[in-house]
Amino acid sequence: MTPDPRDPVAVAQALIACESVTPDEGGALALLERLLTPLGFSVERPVFSASGTPDVENLYARRGEGAAFVFAGHTDVVPTGDAAGWRHGPFSGAIENGELHGRGAVDMKGAVACMVAAVARRPEAAPVAFLITGDEEGPAVNGTAKLLEWAASRGERFSACLLGEPTNPEALGDEIKVGRRGSLSGTVTIRGVQGHVAYPHRADNPVRKLQKALAALMDEPLDQGTDVFQPSNLEVVSVEAGAGAFNVIPSEARFAFNIRYNDRHDADTLSALIVERLDRAVGEGAYQLVFEPRTGDAFLTPPGPLSDLVADAVEAETGRRPALTTSGGTSDARFIKSYCPVVEFGLVGQTMHQIDERVAVADLETLTRIYERALVAATGQASLQ
Amino acid sequence: MTPDPRDPVAVAQALIACESVTPDEGGALALLERLLTPLGFSVERPVFSASGTPDVENLYARRGEGAAFVFAGHTDVVPTGDAAGWRHGPFSGAIENGELHGRGAVDMKGAVACMVAAVARRPEAAPVAFLITGDEEGPAVNGTAKLLEWAASRGERFSACLLGEPTNPEALGDEIKVGRRGSLSGTVTIRGVQGHVAYPHRADNPVRKLQKALAALMDEPLDQGTDVFQPSNLEVVSVEAGAGAFNVIPSEARFAFNIRYNDRHDADTLSALIVERLDRAVGEGAYQLVFEPRTGDAFLTPPGPLSDLVADAVEAETGRRPALTTSGGTSDARFIKSYCPVVEFGLVGQTMHQIDERVAVADLETLTRIYERALVAATGQASLQ
Repeated sequence: MTPDPRDPVAVAQALIACESVTPDEGGALALLERLLTPLGFSVERPVFSASGTPDVENLYARRGEGAAFVFAGHTDVVPTGDAAGWRHGPFSGAIENGELHGRGAVDMKGAVACMVAAVARRPEAAPVAFLITGDEEGPAVNGTAKLLEWAASRGERFSACLLGEPTNPEALGDEIKVGRRGSLSGTVTIRGVQGHVAYPHRADNPVRKLQKALAALMDEPLDQGTDVFQPSNLEVVSVEAGAGAFNVIPSEARFAFNIRYNDRHDADTLSALIVERLDRAVGEGAYQLVFEPRTGDAFLTPPGPLSDLVADAVEAETGRRPALTTSGGTSDARFIKSYCPVVEFGLVGQTMHQIDERVAVADLETLTRIYERALVAATGQASLQ
Repeated sequence: MTPDPRDPVAVAQALIACESVTPDEGGALALLERLLTPLGFSVERPVFSASGTPDVENLYARRGEGAAFVFAGHTDVVPTGDAAGWRHGPFSGAIENGELHGRGAVDMKGAVACMVAAVARRPEAAPVAFLITGDEEGPAVNGTAKLLEWAASRGERFSACLLGEPTNPEALGDEIKVGRRGSLSGTVTIRGVQGHVAYPHRADNPVRKLQKALAALMDEPLDQGTDVFQPSNLEVVSVEAGAGAFNVIPSEARFAFNIRYNDRHDADTLSALIVERLDRAVGEGAYQLVFEPRTGDAFLTPPGPLSDLVADAVEAETGRRPALTTSGGTSDARFIKSYCPVVEFGLVGQTMHQIDERVAVADLETLTRIYERALVAATGQASLQ
């Protein structure tokens, strides 16, 4: 049974009941089509493919003509983990003590439900569109990036975008994300010469250079951050050398790192900085550095009309002026920012990706009203740049 | 067929033919018994056992009464590696271009053969004894240590010992070992707090402390060495942290080290020094340190009567005065030194433990004459302390 589209709780429950673990559509996009079509939206569900990744279904919906205000999000969810460990089934949508339980409750079927309720309650608001993918939690190859290209090739235009990722650390109203840090990963391999520990002069222990390389990358900050960005941060995520025999000097040492970086760097300047530090620490040619495929530089939608509009809506409903931040992981905003201004505001992220993911029922109503206000304020504005 | 005991080459060939990879006796000790008994030796072959290790056979032989000059060694050998990779079979004892090929040719069936030839050519020399184990290349639990206890419990006394390990790096006459470094191994585990790389403030990356711990242990020398000992040396033999995922800060980091140390330390003082350095670098309680079971401190037979006697014998036969050193790996001398003065002199070690292990036939004759001279000079001396 299709729920009342004006009721975000009922829509969220119906979405949670769809077992849409990436890359499965699980009925979630079909449900959205059933909900949006009667609200005046024309709906399409393009499937995108790429070798080495599963096919993924997406949804594009529009009501009205011209440069549309876009609600963006995803209906795919991360795996449930041990389903038996959940207080309520991960696809149950059970409500207990004012909380709605289920995988995706906050990330981000709950927010998608609020978007649907907002357009249902404001039938006059147009042009408005939905960009919903089923590939945000997976490889993100057959999702938002391709959906945007697909829409652009059909002449679709957008005034601004509000992405519904869970942006609030503690309570609804904490933070609007106006950008995201970039991410760069790499692996460093340092060759040595294997040998017996009793004869170190015949060997070359790569752990000595490993230690110097680690110090060179970790000791000195990459920058001091900016007004809206945290300092760029490097974490060494794995280290490996030797086989555990106490009498053998290992032949090579290896470590992997990830950097979350702000807009004082791009992948090119940052790669060069890493190489410079490693060259200085262990010598050019003493190591091999392989970067992972790039996943996107830092970006920022500078505080301005769009963030003001959303912040006003949040303040009107919560009584709190949200901070404009750029912290946390990556999101599909990295793709959207090339097409129109984009900010992110959604639910409280505390339980996201965890067992017993859940959302306060009251937050669903509040977020719906925030989305309504933003939608009304944005409607008819040609540009929010 | 039992070879002529006065011919070290024939005896070495017969010993190499015995497949005595630790812990197998392979007929090698039985052959020695057949060779030594006719030379006036009383021979016993005690077998020692310990839970968790294979039983191992050993040999003790004595000729004459009183405090005996001891030839010590082992007939067990390390595995052959890929037997098909040998120019001649590893147990063939083939001679080509003046070299005798086979596993144990230098480490140390060749030297044992020279010892047998020396006592065969000097039938008047007594008291003299053999301490031969089959557990030097293995766990060394059921070998020389127990054989010495066994002999002592029977009232056996020794004036001095010459151990036949391959001590010469390049040519016969290079080096007499008058001591050995001690060995101490340990594993350090540093606990952190796992987390997502995008939220490092919620995690504690143990690789930061790992880097500081490595620096603390490797950057500053443990000492400057002594006249006869190299500086003590620490090698980190393995490092491990993380699982290779680029977005996860690991929960712990671990590394293992081995120290070869001189007589400026013992295992107690050295352990305390390591703890002090780690405490200073990463903080008391921030890590766990587990030492491996101790395998013996550094020891030294101070240059004196025994080393003079052996050096004289070497110089008389090779024209070169050997250096007195303490470098290289450990040996059974670490057990013998508690019973009598011990020095080590044997063949050229270059091919030991390698495929195509081999010895110059001429060296076997020269080493036999060196052993003869040492035996004659030592015979009848009540003490070489």
